[in-house]
Amino acid sequence: MSDYGRSNDPKAQLSGLRDQIDELDQQLVELLAKRAKVTTQVGQIKSQTGMPTYVPEREAQLIESRRQQALALGVPPDLVEDLLRRIMRESYLTQNSEYRCATEKGTKIAVIGGKGALGKLMVGLFERSHYDVVVIDKDEWPDAQRLLTGVKLCIVAVPIKQTVNIIKTLSFLDDDCVLADITSVKQAPLDAMLEAHTGPVVGLHPMFGPDAPGMVKQVVIVCHGRSAQQYEWLLQQMVIWGAQLHKSDASVHDADMAYIQVMRHFTSFVYGAHLHAEDPDLASLIAHSSPIYRLELAMVGRLFAQDPNLYADIIFDNTENLALLKRFRTRFDEAIALFEANNKAQFVEQFRHISQWFGDYAKACLVDSKQLLLKADDDRMLRKK
Amino acid sequence: MSDYGRSNDPKAQLSGLRDQIDELDQQLVELLAKRAKVTTQVGQIKSQTGMPTYVPEREAQLIESRRQQALALGVPPDLVEDLLRRIMRESYLTQNSEYRCATEKGTKIAVIGGKGALGKLMVGLFERSHYDVVVIDKDEWPDAQRLLTGVKLCIVAVPIKQTVNIIKTLSFLDDDCVLADITSVKQAPLDAMLEAHTGPVVGLHPMFGPDAPGMVKQVVIVCHGRSAQQYEWLLQQMVIWGAQLHKSDASVHDADMAYIQVMRHFTSFVYGAHLHAEDPDLASLIAHSSPIYRLELAMVGRLFAQDPNLYADIIFDNTENLALLKRFRTRFDEAIALFEANNKAQFVEQFRHISQWFGDYAKACLVDSKQLLLKADDDRMLRKK
Repeated sequence: MSDYGRSNDPKAQLSGLRDQIDELDQQLVELLAKRAKVTTQVGQIKSQTGMPTYVPEREAQLIESRRQQALALGVPPDLVEDLLRRIMRESYLTQNSEYRCATEKGTKIAVIGGKGALGKLMVGLFERSHYDVVVIDKDEWPDAQRLLTGVKLCIVAVPIKQTVNIIKTLSFLDDDCVLADITSVKQAPLDAMLEAHTGPVVGLHPMFGPDAPGMVKQVVIVCHGRSAQQYEWLLQQMVIWGAQLHKSDASVHDADMAYIQVMRHFTSFVYGAHLHAEDPDLASLIAHSSPIYRLELAMVGRLFAQDPNLYADIIFDNTENLALLKRFRTRFDEAIALFEANNKAQFVEQFRHISQWFGDYAKACLVDSKQLLLKADDDRMLRKK
Repeated sequence: MSDYGRSNDPKAQLSGLRDQIDELDQQLVELLAKRAKVTTQVGQIKSQTGMPTYVPEREAQLIESRRQQALALGVPPDLVEDLLRRIMRESYLTQNSEYRCATEKGTKIAVIGGKGALGKLMVGLFERSHYDVVVIDKDEWPDAQRLLTGVKLCIVAVPIKQTVNIIKTLSFLDDDCVLADITSVKQAPLDAMLEAHTGPVVGLHPMFGPDAPGMVKQVVIVCHGRSAQQYEWLLQQMVIWGAQLHKSDASVHDADMAYIQVMRHFTSFVYGAHLHAEDPDLASLIAHSSPIYRLELAMVGRLFAQDPNLYADIIFDNTENLALLKRFRTRFDEAIALFEANNKAQFVEQFRHISQWFGDYAKACLVDSKQLLLKADDDRMLRKK
């Protein structure tokens, strides 16, 4: 700090302090390089011995020790925790060049639709876990029966529209082959699998997009079909990859999906259609938005960067969705009627009932979304046009 | 790394490596403590000389240098950038114990509604910038005329419902007093200010909530009223606080607000009302959601942790909103009709038109929201219930 004392020129002082900051930041990068070397070794040991990648207790203890140290040194503990979590996220990615195989090494498995986005991710994980992976996509499909001979696991990872039809053809699998799918609806594929195949069956729904960095910390919904002991090794494999398994009933799962997925897609679509028809200046809209509204607008905008056919399938292929959305429209009409009658009192009362229904979750959402916006702000996200 | 070689027991090896990680993380916390000392000095120099808190070029150069170093050392540059931005966010907070006064020190100003959330934030900023701040809230209101004598700036920071009525009474301000408001609508308050007061007038809309950590990097919309030279110092003061000013027309601003604020609040309300009426199990819904759906649900849920009266005022107090929302309902009906007719082709075509309307923004939203979810994941946000 001696440079700071020497000069009375604020600009020179500032320049000296900035040099000190640069020097400290250099040390930070060097520290990260050293840390990455150590965590790579940790990853090697874990993959050789099959220890799980993600150990919540170790993570919690590591963070707590550093929070205590931060407090003692007058550094904000939340800052230290945020930094450590970000560093650990990266180290999970680089740690996992390979994984222990939960069953016999070289076991032959197949991924149908293995060239699609999520299919590719599954293929990569199995290959890095020493499986012999057969990839079956459009080109290989005519030869599927031959290719699937002797596989111990067949995962159906084709688009939702084709899932049931593909499954129906899979009557020729070996009796000890596990049949699984990873579609975002579960009841229909599960029924089809149980009908087509006599061996072990399990429905899976990985709750993340194909752009997720592997399976570490991700939730996978597991819907039981048949012979749980025989597919247990598959569940174990996902735990080795870091997944958090969540057993569920297929019909409950599907009803929940309608409430979340279908309703959100549909309202985002209508919201986008409305903006398009009204045609305000989008750049001005974004400039006039606070971070929270930019995030809300972004949640609509992101839909329209994706494949319309996928969303058409998700919304249209289930007639129960129509009844749900019609009831949704009724609520829309009721709210408009409140507005037309200028009935604020009724609006406020209904609002309070809904708040009670959400309970503590609403508060948690408010806190989480604020935290999230601060992070978005760090990166100057959601500011563009 | 020598410990690692010595043992053949994987558990002992792992334990040795973890000690090394703890040692490196300790050094990280020490580094942060040193860095905070230096940035505090930077803050002192900046506040003494009135240099702006936020200097985008310095920030960009600092990050770029460290990204280059990271590349050279095999550390992911994005990791380094994320960490530095998080560290800098904290240092903006701790740097600013005081600010240079953009006009004469001790200038008397008043904040009406200065005990409200956003009012308090404004009072704090002015006080830390060496102003003599008069706080006027309900209790002081009867004595307002006397308290406002001689103030050079009067900021109206009361709830939106009261803004215009409060402004109408402010006919007694000194001629050289700047009259400003910070309401989220601009046209009506601006008109009222120009009518009530003959001196300089400016409408402001700080695009952030009262929970924002100061004004650093935040956008403030500025709507010109009268005598720009005379309120120029107020704008300068906000720049010193780190704000990014964005000049706008009041009517354009208000129309944009209706598209974003009113439409979002209204649809979130209807969405919540629908969930409440359908009454699915919320915990199961959350468990069955992928991170992106949890975020979407959170954007609805957060509304219901807030004051219903505020939202009733925002939505109901502008009759143009009703016409907008009725047109919105028409689009809802049209989309339902597409679904009923099972007209996927038309849905896909309309989807494509909307995509074109959003243009590059949709893609940017998709990328941003993915990044944001990774950050949410670091903190295990949006997982609770």
